[in-house]
Amino acid sequence: MNSNVLLSERDMQFLLYDVHAVDELTAFDYFSDHDRETFEQFLSACKRFARERMWPSYKQMDKEVPSFGEDARSGQRAICVHPRMGELYSQLANLGVLAASRPYDVGGSQLPITVSTAAMTWLMAGNLSAAGFAFLTTGAAHLVEAFGDTWLRTHFMKPMYAGRFTGTMALTEPHAGSSLADIRTSATHDSGGRYRIRGSKIFISGGANNFSDNIVHLTLARIEDSPAGTRGVSLFAVPKLRPEGDQWVPNDVQASQLIEKIGWKGLPSVVLDYGSEDDCIGWLVGRPNDGLSHMFQMMNEARILVGANAVATASVGYQESLEYAKSRPQGRLIDTEKGSTGPQVPIAQHPDVRRMLLRQKCIVTGGLSLVLETAKYQDIAAHGSSLTVRERAQILADFMTPLAKTFPAEWGYEANTLAVQVHGGYGYSSEYVVEALLRDQKLNSIHEGTTGLQGLDLLGRKILRDRGHGLQLWLETILGDLALAQATESPELKEYAAVLRAFVSQVQVTLRNLSSRTSLSSMLSHSTDMLLALCSFAVGWQWLKIVTQAERAADGGLQGTKCPHIRGLRHCAQYWFATEIPVAVAQLTRVDVADSSFLDCSLDSL
Amino acid sequence: MNSNVLLSERDMQFLLYDVHAVDELTAFDYFSDHDRETFEQFLSACKRFARERMWPSYKQMDKEVPSFGEDARSGQRAICVHPRMGELYSQLANLGVLAASRPYDVGGSQLPITVSTAAMTWLMAGNLSAAGFAFLTTGAAHLVEAFGDTWLRTHFMKPMYAGRFTGTMALTEPHAGSSLADIRTSATHDSGGRYRIRGSKIFISGGANNFSDNIVHLTLARIEDSPAGTRGVSLFAVPKLRPEGDQWVPNDVQASQLIEKIGWKGLPSVVLDYGSEDDCIGWLVGRPNDGLSHMFQMMNEARILVGANAVATASVGYQESLEYAKSRPQGRLIDTEKGSTGPQVPIAQHPDVRRMLLRQKCIVTGGLSLVLETAKYQDIAAHGSSLTVRERAQILADFMTPLAKTFPAEWGYEANTLAVQVHGGYGYSSEYVVEALLRDQKLNSIHEGTTGLQGLDLLGRKILRDRGHGLQLWLETILGDLALAQATESPELKEYAAVLRAFVSQVQVTLRNLSSRTSLSSMLSHSTDMLLALCSFAVGWQWLKIVTQAERAADGGLQGTKCPHIRGLRHCAQYWFATEIPVAVAQLTRVDVADSSFLDCSLDSL
Repeated sequence: MNSNVLLSERDMQFLLYDVHAVDELTAFDYFSDHDRETFEQFLSACKRFARERMWPSYKQMDKEVPSFGEDARSGQRAICVHPRMGELYSQLANLGVLAASRPYDVGGSQLPITVSTAAMTWLMAGNLSAAGFAFLTTGAAHLVEAFGDTWLRTHFMKPMYAGRFTGTMALTEPHAGSSLADIRTSATHDSGGRYRIRGSKIFISGGANNFSDNIVHLTLARIEDSPAGTRGVSLFAVPKLRPEGDQWVPNDVQASQLIEKIGWKGLPSVVLDYGSEDDCIGWLVGRPNDGLSHMFQMMNEARILVGANAVATASVGYQESLEYAKSRPQGRLIDTEKGSTGPQVPIAQHPDVRRMLLRQKCIVTGGLSLVLETAKYQDIAAHGSSLTVRERAQILADFMTPLAKTFPAEWGYEANTLAVQVHGGYGYSSEYVVEALLRDQKLNSIHEGTTGLQGLDLLGRKILRDRGHGLQLWLETILGDLALAQATESPELKEYAAVLRAFVSQVQVTLRNLSSRTSLSSMLSHSTDMLLALCSFAVGWQWLKIVTQAERAADGGLQGTKCPHIRGLRHCAQYWFATEIPVAVAQLTRVDVADSSFLDCSLDSL
Repeated sequence: MNSNVLLSERDMQFLLYDVHAVDELTAFDYFSDHDRETFEQFLSACKRFARERMWPSYKQMDKEVPSFGEDARSGQRAICVHPRMGELYSQLANLGVLAASRPYDVGGSQLPITVSTAAMTWLMAGNLSAAGFAFLTTGAAHLVEAFGDTWLRTHFMKPMYAGRFTGTMALTEPHAGSSLADIRTSATHDSGGRYRIRGSKIFISGGANNFSDNIVHLTLARIEDSPAGTRGVSLFAVPKLRPEGDQWVPNDVQASQLIEKIGWKGLPSVVLDYGSEDDCIGWLVGRPNDGLSHMFQMMNEARILVGANAVATASVGYQESLEYAKSRPQGRLIDTEKGSTGPQVPIAQHPDVRRMLLRQKCIVTGGLSLVLETAKYQDIAAHGSSLTVRERAQILADFMTPLAKTFPAEWGYEANTLAVQVHGGYGYSSEYVVEALLRDQKLNSIHEGTTGLQGLDLLGRKILRDRGHGLQLWLETILGDLALAQATESPELKEYAAVLRAFVSQVQVTLRNLSSRTSLSSMLSHSTDMLLALCSFAVGWQWLKIVTQAERAADGGLQGTKCPHIRGLRHCAQYWFATEIPVAVAQLTRVDVADSSFLDCSLDSL
């Protein structure tokens, strides 16, 4: 296994402290024990662990996948994960990853989500399957923390945050996929807050393992006689082992099938059968019939983590292809090629290879910046100093979440494809790691809401439903940054700001045109185009912010324009504005033009 | 294994006979025994074989990959392919696939390359690994046919065309990849036309099997004391078994290693070791030191086949996702969703899914049309009625080859990605076939010249080196079709023609600007952008031609505008002009703007 730095440390630092000033958050009470030093302690522990312990096991886990076998502890038939997984998981728990951003009173560290997301990016870059067990558990525990009573918190949340139990999010059913209104898993009132659960779930990541003491499945189900559709869905905690008196007894929820996934291979994805012997008990979490709304309060965090994961996977591919391109000699430079007698040059010197490398860096660092900014709004939304501040941040966090999920997923897939391409024929071989990363990446445009659904969420829910309020607030925020950039002496910043300003105007015109359409479906027919155009634009905005800070750094004399790191960031911005923004303009135009070919085309024409 | 129609038969027919009028070729002497009926006989035999025999074995071959084992015939250690491969291969030979387009006197059928390419598209859609053994053998035999003497033709070409021997193209070496100037495999004069070969080749597809009587490796090597670089490379036939008197004896060329490819899994790709016991004999094919130029005379055909393969793989994914989308119920239409109580609708009714389906169809059918047009120019170049006609067609075939290779490879990869996306979570499982097709597709932007090299070939060799002559001839051809379209009564055709005409002007400006640059490297720095822009544009041209024929079909009353097939083709054109051409314009603009970010960026900035 090659070494791989996983992420650019200088980029991560520059984004966290220069561009996003994450240390500002320590002004809020919740974070007041923290400072840059405590952030860095946590981050560098995670970085070391990712590089030294997680990454060396990544490729093995891609090859030696979970399978049905005998659980060494119980002697029973069980899904066994890679032998090293249990050890990695306890170390992640020891690092304080599981409750990093949670309050002290549940055993957490009260770190900003911005910092815990940055840390998770390191860990996911190291080994996304191991990190997956951790963030799924955090998500499940957080749901119990937010909506569960003391009994539930004691029995399920605490052991999850402590690393003894793992957790899952069990939403999807075989016949319904993304359509949560059609959930059929049933819950019948039993006694107390207990319900009998019957049904089946599919694609449950981390739904089985042979290292944790218990698994708590946070499960959406329908209580008998509830309303049809989304308004009749409730949330339950359904453990693998349930407490009965002093005992933990089997709870009749079984992983009956392993999905043969093409990536994330260390993390088993299973079909879960509930109550096949009519002895599966679940505990209601929160209010009856409010399950979806409870679940969706956690969804932003989950979606940002998908964005972070996509950045991580794209980054590892980028670093791998960068090292390959620097060390692989092949061919000669065009202007000297005729002779063909001198030594070959490293392929990193060929313009088209250089283009593929810089493009990857733009996607990785631009995507990371977008993810961190969105996470910071979540921190402010939760802990900001006034209600106004918190509400404003919440709107921005909600608005930006589909962008922070989709940009890294879609462009990250392209980045991982380029990492394969840079490797040439070797990239097509599974002896090299880049193809595995490409397989991992493909999931990110599918899980936690497909790209198509993110488009509907952005345009339908976040833009049209609130009459453009969230969008306007977001654009105002951006215009503020543009004004700052235009006030500098830098010609490049002035130019970038002008380009983005023109884009803002185009967005506003588009929004007016959309509002005048007669049906919701006609407004939404190009929602994916809208989403993708705003993704590119949002990352253009991030590059403007990055260059703005780079100028300040240069003025401060700390990191001058001669510093290769700062120069690289400016080249990325230059590339993005020259190459990507014009495509975003064309993409946004599609929303206005509203070509109806694919709507009008009948199925028998296809 | 699901059934899958593999390709749209009505699109194939419409393209062959209406759009490209392949039957016109029968006016040339070489094809004079043929007519539409003989074409269809061959094509429908290939179609049936692809659907009924090849496709049912595809998924097995993806899972049960070649491995070292014992050759049942010799008892020796050998690379054993899937047990069904040998049977499929003999049936392909019996179908007349191997020498379909070759002359009668070598056992061929004198079919147009346009028809044999269409047939090969069916076969590659059925099982690209089995088809791969066939087209590699045809390529190797064709080289011997073109440049070998009678002895070579008798001993190697004939048994290859007859299906007893298979063949390979052995170019790439581990240290040199695409840089053929750096080939080190050596050939030392032995006696007669015999040479002793020593060296190593990598990524040799079909380099081993346990079903054919012999394997002939068409190998690039360097004769001692030859000039350095590309001008010192010669072509040799190096068989696995060589004739010595009446015997065929082992020839000391061994497949020493199997590459763990991520796709095309039925077709072993190997490392070949030549002369490790100093007993490997090769026969010079053609002139010494002209090996590369000999090889490149076959390259157009090979590259068009890569394009056809990419179309085939994209098409199978498209058909798979179309059937899935029609049969998978999930969610409800936006305008009726609120209630959430009615039955779910098939996902093919959701706008964004419909978009992903139509986009795939545009890529598949547009790509196929481009491939067939390029193949037709090859036929005319070889067999046209006058030297002028042949020369003109040769220039067009040469010019269009990088487009016909790259468009299907790059956009086909996107199409296969969309086929996975349409399947949602199921697409991420290897129980469904779409992910395997995606893995297969990735090779097409890498082998037979990467996309980056196709860009250099197009802009450097085909455009700049001949001062834009090939480009101008191509644009004139297109302008002819635009004039025809503008002369019709159809508003849509007039509009499409105007869009393409504007693009032609932009290309001409770009070419002038490029010519004024001072260094070759600065002219070529955006060659990939140029290539991709011209790819989209070329497919826009194909859609214009398709709609032009669709109008004629409508006027002729045979297939009216009410026919779903014709309507579908028009919707594709509408989509392409609304969605893709604006992106191509932005991409072409990049060549002019000539952003230098990735050239200026130093490696320590990345």
